[in-house]
This record gives sequence, structure tokens and C-alpha cells, in this order.
Amino acid sequence: MNKYQVTFMPDKVTVAVMKGTNLLLAAKKAGIDIESPCGGHGTCGKCAVKILNGAYDMQDDSHLPKELKEMGYTLACQVKVRNDMTVEVPFLSRLTRHKVVLGSKRTKFNKEHDYFGKKPMDPICRKYAVQLEAPYLSDSLNDLDRLKHALSRQYGLTDVRIALSCLKTLPSALRQGGWEVTVTVADTGSAAEIVAVEPGRSTKPAYGIAVDIGTTTVVVNLLNTEKGKILDKAGSYNKQAVYGSDVISRIIYTDEHADGLALLQKAVVETINELIDGILRKNGLEPGDIPVMVCGGNTVMTHLFMGVTASYLRLEPYVPSAVKFPVVKARELNININPEAAVITIPSVASYVGGDITAGVLATMIARSEALTLFIDIGTNGELVLGNKDWMVTCSCSAGPAFEGSGISCGMRAMDGAIDWIAIDHQSLEVQCKVIGDTKPLGICGSGLIYSLSEMMEAGIIDRAGKILTGKASGRIRKTSEGREYVLIYAEESGTGQDIVITEGDIKNLLRAKGAIFAGIRTMLQMVQLDTSAIERVYIAGGFGNDINLADAVNIGLLPDLPAEKYEYVGNSCIQGAMIVLLCREALAESEKLADGMTYLELSVGNQFMDEFISAMFIPHTDLSLFPTLHSA
Amino acid sequence: MNKYQVTFMPDKVTVAVMKGTNLLLAAKKAGIDIESPCGGHGTCGKCAVKILNGAYDMQDDSHLPKELKEMGYTLACQVKVRNDMTVEVPFLSRLTRHKVVLGSKRTKFNKEHDYFGKKPMDPICRKYAVQLEAPYLSDSLNDLDRLKHALSRQYGLTDVRIALSCLKTLPSALRQGGWEVTVTVADTGSAAEIVAVEPGRSTKPAYGIAVDIGTTTVVVNLLNTEKGKILDKAGSYNKQAVYGSDVISRIIYTDEHADGLALLQKAVVETINELIDGILRKNGLEPGDIPVMVCGGNTVMTHLFMGVTASYLRLEPYVPSAVKFPVVKARELNININPEAAVITIPSVASYVGGDITAGVLATMIARSEALTLFIDIGTNGELVLGNKDWMVTCSCSAGPAFEGSGISCGMRAMDGAIDWIAIDHQSLEVQCKVIGDTKPLGICGSGLIYSLSEMMEAGIIDRAGKILTGKASGRIRKTSEGREYVLIYAEESGTGQDIVITEGDIKNLLRAKGAIFAGIRTMLQMVQLDTSAIERVYIAGGFGNDINLADAVNIGLLPDLPAEKYEYVGNSCIQGAMIVLLCREALAESEKLADGMTYLELSVGNQFMDEFISAMFIPHTDLSLFPTLHSA
Repeated sequence: MNKYQVTFMPDKVTVAVMKGTNLLLAAKKAGIDIESPCGGHGTCGKCAVKILNGAYDMQDDSHLPKELKEMGYTLACQVKVRNDMTVEVPFLSRLTRHKVVLGSKRTKFNKEHDYFGKKPMDPICRKYAVQLEAPYLSDSLNDLDRLKHALSRQYGLTDVRIALSCLKTLPSALRQGGWEVTVTVADTGSAAEIVAVEPGRSTKPAYGIAVDIGTTTVVVNLLNTEKGKILDKAGSYNKQAVYGSDVISRIIYTDEHADGLALLQKAVVETINELIDGILRKNGLEPGDIPVMVCGGNTVMTHLFMGVTASYLRLEPYVPSAVKFPVVKARELNININPEAAVITIPSVASYVGGDITAGVLATMIARSEALTLFIDIGTNGELVLGNKDWMVTCSCSAGPAFEGSGISCGMRAMDGAIDWIAIDHQSLEVQCKVIGDTKPLGICGSGLIYSLSEMMEAGIIDRAGKILTGKASGRIRKTSEGREYVLIYAEESGTGQDIVITEGDIKNLLRAKGAIFAGIRTMLQMVQLDTSAIERVYIAGGFGNDINLADAVNIGLLPDLPAEKYEYVGNSCIQGAMIVLLCREALAESEKLADGMTYLELSVGNQFMDEFISAMFIPHTDLSLFPTLHSA
Repeated sequence: MNKYQVTFMPDKVTVAVMKGTNLLLAAKKAGIDIESPCGGHGTCGKCAVKILNGAYDMQDDSHLPKELKEMGYTLACQVKVRNDMTVEVPFLSRLTRHKVVLGSKRTKFNKEHDYFGKKPMDPICRKYAVQLEAPYLSDSLNDLDRLKHALSRQYGLTDVRIALSCLKTLPSALRQGGWEVTVTVADTGSAAEIVAVEPGRSTKPAYGIAVDIGTTTVVVNLLNTEKGKILDKAGSYNKQAVYGSDVISRIIYTDEHADGLALLQKAVVETINELIDGILRKNGLEPGDIPVMVCGGNTVMTHLFMGVTASYLRLEPYVPSAVKFPVVKARELNININPEAAVITIPSVASYVGGDITAGVLATMIARSEALTLFIDIGTNGELVLGNKDWMVTCSCSAGPAFEGSGISCGMRAMDGAIDWIAIDHQSLEVQCKVIGDTKPLGICGSGLIYSLSEMMEAGIIDRAGKILTGKASGRIRKTSEGREYVLIYAEESGTGQDIVITEGDIKNLLRAKGAIFAGIRTMLQMVQLDTSAIERVYIAGGFGNDINLADAVNIGLLPDLPAEKYEYVGNSCIQGAMIVLLCREALAESEKLADGMTYLELSVGNQFMDEFISAMFIPHTDLSLFPTLHSA
């Protein structure tokens, strides 16, 4: 078959592809990741590119914004290569332009973490320098048993297995090291195994990798697990994003493509490998230096990472293939660390309450506290946990990624060019705003959207149902074919050359998102017959949590009306939990107990959630008595 | 670099090789296995081939028998390819012409084996048909836990892990089978693991493979492990033979070639895979149907099979890398059965007492009996065990492979054309003999050699020291440049066109071999201060054991002079032990205890063995009181 050359600009990268290849996949092949939250279905309109020359077949570009079309753009996912081509991929369509927030600004993690208390750490992987007696004719004990005897004598370690690849290196290591070797032992609970053998006394400590596999972003931390110290962090966008921005569209991709599951697994493994590769180079380490990796992710991410179908998570009755995955070897997943390294995934609770939440509960020690605690993780989805050391209830609200900017006409993630704060003059309806980075505004991120909603309400631009009112005379309020919109930034001041607006449609999406979370909280409280005021502590987790203003979030009815001192931002609690597991064998067992112990509340069963959801679609809520400190004036 | 075509006849197989390639390796590449017991060092003279045309470089062919040289033969291992060539490989130089004795004629193996007694069998792998409840909205337990709960409820199985590849197939198998699946569980002691998942109720039983990895021959048995029944057997020569006929020359090969260890592992894995492939086809099975394999082999064979260096077994103080190897997955060794299948190697005792001996002791149940038992395995080497349920001593005599025909001028293995019985007329010194198969004699095999020695002694052709006497006038006794020889078969009656003779050198080699074994027995007895007569039972194991005549073996002083009823031939006790392990989890643990519990006697330490050896180099021995029933007349 014929192959054609496709060159991407301004990168100047050329790839050869078959006739008929989708341009989005050609870009992927060229190493250029283009935004495509809809998974290449032509409906999100985000993968705009400019075709500079070449012949192609066009499918359906009806979802491409008219302005972009006029500027010569087209949707990459709707283009099929028919000849050599040159294609420009603009900055805004690139996934990699985003900066990933690596961890909480507010939460420190070290071996003084409360979790460890006064006990010494007990990491999953340890290194042991072992001194052996040299064999002689009347003591010709074999190398392996000689090592095991010494491990038992010197360190009290018994019942240790050895990986075959390590046994292969043992004889020469023993002799090269003059009958001294350093072995790395991984103990994941079921069995302790020697996963690395070095001749002599190793000068390197035992390292470990903790990974937060987010739907949108992946974060990797490198630890010295002997000292319990974070050595480095790296993060990037999950390369799976080209197959869909949310978990559902990615599952659909695996259902619709024979090699879909393999591609999605490969994408996340590549993402992790690139992060690890970078972090190892920076720290002068080799892949072989890493004998253990602990990952946290939501249930779908964990399935896709392990290469196990997530299809039944999407179909009633929404059954995971597994919640507790077996501990596997890095080589089974092509993770580029020590091939014998133990790869541990933190167990999930249910279909839409994943290992990231178990990790968060572990890190915040809710299950060790008397205090009734509410844990909220608002990321691409919204997961909630309510409970204390006696019981825990959890649920997942299909909040959608509105607060990550998705499904919002001018929405974007929190990065350079994003409006993250606004204020509206109640009289003139004029707008003040703050933009991340030294740049013109390109769109609005999560915190900007919360401010917008709160301010538009306060200024009387919208009513409690989210309808834009016409009572106030302002050029910023206008009517389009699809309803009313409010202009935050006019085209001449924006970085996109277009108005930055909030439409009634956007407001509806935001109300749905905030309403789902609040209704989830209310449904859990009702299940245990407690009042909002019974909540003694609220942990806000996730990258989103770092940026929101508490007062405004309460103001729009996203968070319950509780005293500010009850709230605590815990940052990326998933990676914190993963690090705790790396450093503490007991925590691995505890994470399994936690996942088992949480009662999962399926919100789609019964009418209670639906009733609560409808009430929570108002600003802040239909029942104002739930927000006593607001509107009391 | 230039490549040349080498064509092998009469096979008409052509391979392309680099200039300078050794002709022996070119033949291997062509799939033609040529005898080369010396490992290609040009010293054994067995790899004779006829070069029909083409240019080549010749190294040292001084060890090629003169007659063969005159007939136009040359040593393949000493030829380096310099141009296109055509080479004829005669029948006698081919390894594959040999037929392998698959098992004992005298020993039956089935589930009525005494080992199992009255208890039900408890195989390592079992199949479980599991009936699950279909999930629904308010019971959305994940697939894996649903399966585990059912396994626990239906079969009382708890704490079962699952291989990742099986977890990948579980969701579709469950749905395809209408919430009924058949799982295969392998329990090797440390942890039970699901290694196969089939939708619905499987109609196939659980199968298992037992393997005897001999230095010379490899035997594979296929079992229905539910019924404890042998379904089929297959055997062939170990393809490692082209790298050397004995374990020492193979270790040397790995030491002298960078890829030697990999090549030797590949050779034995190929041997096993071909046997398994054939046996599976014949029985209409797929590789995936085999979830477990148990192997027995000597210590060197086990090391090479696992790809672990055996080099230190050859160097003082003769230390194995391991005696108990980890249980690995078939995929780690490229064994072509279910990739997740457990591959178990029976533990060795010491450097030269391997898992084959442990298996033999297990199968003969020496350690469960009161009776003082002597276990003798004469194969390529000679290993001995003496003991009962209270204690066991074991040793290895460097008997060498003389009884397999190696190192004997007209020696050959027990196959078509081999003389396996002779009688000599005491007056005329004329010879009667029996040849295996319907063919002219080609050489003498082990049993033929024992008869020869015994008959030559009886006929007064040799003295007790093995010297050929000149007192009797016979054209069959003649002198050559290398000493005297006795002609068994004249050239005109032989299939090789040459005389079949026994030289003084041959006799010396045979006396060394038989002397080493008898001296080993004596040294063990002295260690425990017992007399030969204390032995209550003698088990003769190994392919060799099947063919020898007891009276003649005692006559030449190979075996102790005990009543015939104390002797029992047990055949291939290695594969019997491997089968017992397949069928009985307890036996796996017992094999480890046995290997641990045997006291290894290193014969090279101290002078006792040497003294005994010198005394045993006579026929039958210097101390005739050890053979009371002989020569008493």
C-alpha cells in the first residue's frame, strides 16, 4: 500500500502513514499530542489544525467553531490522509502546553507524616548488605542457600524467595564482591523476594516510585525509601487524553477499536515511563535502581493501566473487573524500572470510587480518627467519603469535568492564559480579572468559573436558577441564537482574538457539576441520618482544590456552609497515600482493609440523589436553611 | 560480510552462514544434530562428515580415525566455511538416529503407586467449575472478588491469587459462559494461583507434564493429573549433546563462549518443546492446556535449564549456584505450554547429586522404609544413595559415560546395531553375539560391554587387572601400536566395514567406571560402619539399569555380591518422582525435605575413596572376600 509523508509544523516532524490514516493518529505517531477530549469523534471541536498543503478527505467538521473555520482551521480527527501533507498544529490545540501542578503547596510530606507516628518506617523494599563466608571443600553449600542463611543470621530474614533473573546474577556478584553482596528485598505481604543483587556493599539507598495516575494528569514522585524523603517530582498530561478526555469516552474507545485497550495501556505506560526516565536522568539513576512502584488511580485508570477491560464499568450494573489487582512485575507492564520490581496498585472501592480515593483516605487518616470527616476529591469527577474510624460511606457524583474547563465554551485548565479570579462591579457590570502568567486571557479555569458564578449572582446578572437576567442594561449581556451570554473579555483584549464569554449553557453545566457534588454530600448524610452540622472536618483533595476560594464555593452551593476552620486543603492525597504505602508495609494491608471497609453508595439506585440533585441545581440551593450564614443579612 | 550457502546431504537442507563459520554449527543451524561428545574440540573423532565440494579451512583432524580419513571423511568441528559447500552427514555421525528408551519395562506407574497409599491424590493443578451469581445494580461486586467468593463457597478455596493474563480474560469468560467458568489453580506451596480461565464448564481435565532432563536423553510424560494416568510418553536425545557429551564439557562450553549458557539453555528448551509439541499434537491438545510441568535433572542439567551458570560446579570447591530453584512461569523459560504454567524443578542435594536422584529416592520411598537400601543410578555418571527412614548418605562417582559407550573405541548407545550380548567359547575364543534390531553390528553398548568383560575374564583372555593375555592362540587377539586388542566382529561382518574390537584402553576405561561405582558403595558403607551384607535392598535406576545382566555385573565387580532377590530394577525413577510431585502437593514439600536431609559425601575429600578405587580396579576386586559367591568353586 502507498505511504504518504505528513509533516507537522512548526515542529518539522515528518511521519510516513498509510492512505486513509486519521490525522490525529498521524500526529500521535509524530509524537505530537493534540487535545481531543471527545476521543476523535469530531464533537468537541478542540483538535483544530491548519492544513498548509496536501490532499485529504474530510468527514464532519460541523463542530468546529465558525471563527476557527474562517481562520482556515479544520478538525484533525475528521481528516484522512490522501497524499503528502504539511499541517500546522497551533499552541492551543496542543496537550503538552499544559503545566501540571505537581503537588500541594500546602501539604508537606516526609517521614514525620503523622501516619508513621513514633514507629520506625517499614518500607516495602529494603537493601541488605550481606557478608558471607567463602565456601571451601568441606563447606560447599550452594550460593543461594549460603545467601539465605546469611540473611537470616544477619537480619533475621527468613522465607525469602529470589527472582530467577537475580539468581542468574548471584554467582558472579558473590565472587566479584568478595563474598559480600547487597540484595534488595521487596516484601509485598504475600512473600519477600530478592529483586536485585549487587556485588559488594552498595552505596545507593533503596529508591521507590509513587505514581498518581489521573485521568487528566500523571504525577510521579521519586523517594529515598530508607530516609522517607521525596527526592524529585515530575508530572505531565496523561497521553490517553488523545483518546478522550474523560473515563467514559476512553472506555468507548476501547470498545470501538480492536486494539483500543492495548493503545490506552500503552499511552499511560508511555506517560509514566517518560516521567520516570526524566526524573532518573536528572538524579543520575538507572532504571535498575528502582525496585518498587506504588500507583494510585481511579478504577478506570487502574483497569487501563493493567490492560484489563473497563467496559463493564460503563454498562449496567457497572461492575469492575477487579478492585484489588494482583501485584505484578514491572516487566509485565513494560514499566521501565527494574524488570523484577513489584508494581502495586492501591485497591479501589467500587466502579467509580478508585484507588486514588483509598489512598486519600489512607493519607488523611480518616479511619483512625473519631471526628466525623467529609473527604471531597473534585477532579475530572467528584468522589466523596464521609465517616470516621467506625464507619465510612463513599460515593461518586458524575460531576463531569466542568471545573477543569471541559464542556464550558471558554473553559480551560489552570495554566498560562487562564482567568482564575474575577470581580464584577454591581452597578456598571464591568469586570476585573486576574490571568495566570504574563499573557492575555485565553479562557477561564475552574476557580475563575466559581468566581464568575458567585459574582454574577451577587451582581444580579443571573438568578438563582442560573438564568441570565435582562433587567440590567449592559452591552456585556447579549442574546445569541443559543441563548443569552455575558461577555467577560472582549475580543480586542483577549489572546484568542475572540470574546471570552459565559453562556447560559455554561452556567447550566456548572450548576450540574456543583449540584451533583452537593447532592452527593446530602445523600450520604441522609443515609446515616446526620445533619450537615455534624461534619467536624472537611478535606478538599485534588489539584482543583488548591485553587478554589472557599467563600465563593460555599456561595454558589458547591460546598456545605461550615465554618472555614473546619476546611483543610490536602492537595494531591492520592500520591501521598501511594508514598505512605511505599514506606510502610502495614499501610499496604491497611489500604486493602480501607477499600473493603467503605460502604459504597450507588447514587443511581433509588430517587434520593435525584431529588437532592434537582434541589441543588439552584444557587446556592432551594433550601436556604442549609446555608445559614449566607443571605442571612 | 559475505555469506555462503552450505547444503547438507542427503537432507538437501541449505543454510547461509558467514565466512569462517564452524561446520558443526552450520549443521546445527540446518537442524541437523551431529554427534560431538567432546564439544567441538576435535578430540572425540565422532563428527565425521564427507565434504562433497566447496572450499574450507581445516584445523586439526588428527583425532579422526585413519580408516575414516582414507574413506574421505573429515571432522566437521574442525572445518571452517570458506565458500559454498555441499556436505554429506553419514548416519553414524547423527545424533537423532538414536532411539530413546522411554521408561522402564518393569515398573508400572499409576495412581495405585504405593506412594499415594490409600489417600486421595492431591495434584498441584486442579480445575474448578465455578457457578457465580450474575451481578445486578445492588450487587455490583467486581468480577474477581465474585469469582473468589464462589471458589471459597463451592470448594473451600481461600487466599487464591490470579495471574494478570488470566484476569484479562476473566470478564469476557464470565459473560461468555453465562456466569459459569472453569478455572485452573496451581498450588506450589507458597501460594495458590489461577493460571487459566475458561468460559463455561470445561470438558478437558487438568493435564500435567513430567520431564526427565538427562544429560544424554530427555523424556517427557503427559498425564491426566485428575486421574493420575499417564496419557503418553516421548523422548529424544538432549540437543545440548552437540556442545559436549558430558556435563563437564558442556560447562566448559559455557565458559569458553560468551553466549554459551544461552545456547545450552536454548538447546534443552528446544528439546523439551519439540517433545511436548509432538505429544500435544498426538493427543489433540493445545499448549494452553498444560498448566504445570515438573522437571527432574542432575544439578548441572537443572542449572543449564534455568539459565543459571554451572561454572562453579566445575571449580574447587565445586559449589552449585542453587540446589532449590524458584518455581517459575513457563514463559520465563520459553517452554511452550500455558505461559502462566508453574515450572517446578525437583531440588538437588549437591553439585553432583541432582534432582533426578531426589526424585528417585522419592519414587522408591527409601526414606519411608525401615530397610537399609542402596540406590544406584548409572547413567552418564553414577550416583548412589544409601540409607533408610532414619538417615541417608549420598555420593557421586565420576564413573564417566563408559557404559553409555563413550570413551570406548567401538562403544555406542543401546540402539539398532548395538551388540548387547556376547558369549565367548572358552576353547576357540570364537564369539557369539546378539545385535539390537535387524541389522549388522555397528558397535557395543553398555550391557554388551559388561558381558564382554565378564566373558573375556571367564575365557582367560584377560587377567584380573584387565590386561589381555597372549597365552591363548587366537587370531582375535592382536597387537597394535597402542597395545593389545580383541576382535569381537571382523570387518566383513560388521555394518561399519571395520573390525569391532575391545582394546586394553577400553578395558581400562570400563574398569575405572565400574571401580568408581563399587568404591563409592564401599566408602559409604565404611562411613556408617556397615558391611555389604547389611544392605537389605538394592534399587537399580536409570536407562542403563534395564539392560544389564545382574550376574555379569556382579561378576566384573560392578555391583556388590548380594542375593539376586535383593535387587530390583526401578527404571527411570527420575520421571516417576516428577510424576509423583505432579500428583501430590505433599510430595513437592517432601522432595525438598529429602534433598535437605541427605548427607552428601564428597569423595574427593580424604583418601578413603582413592584407596577403595584402586582396589576396585581389579576383576572383580583385590579383596575376593567381598565376592563370596564367586570363585568359591
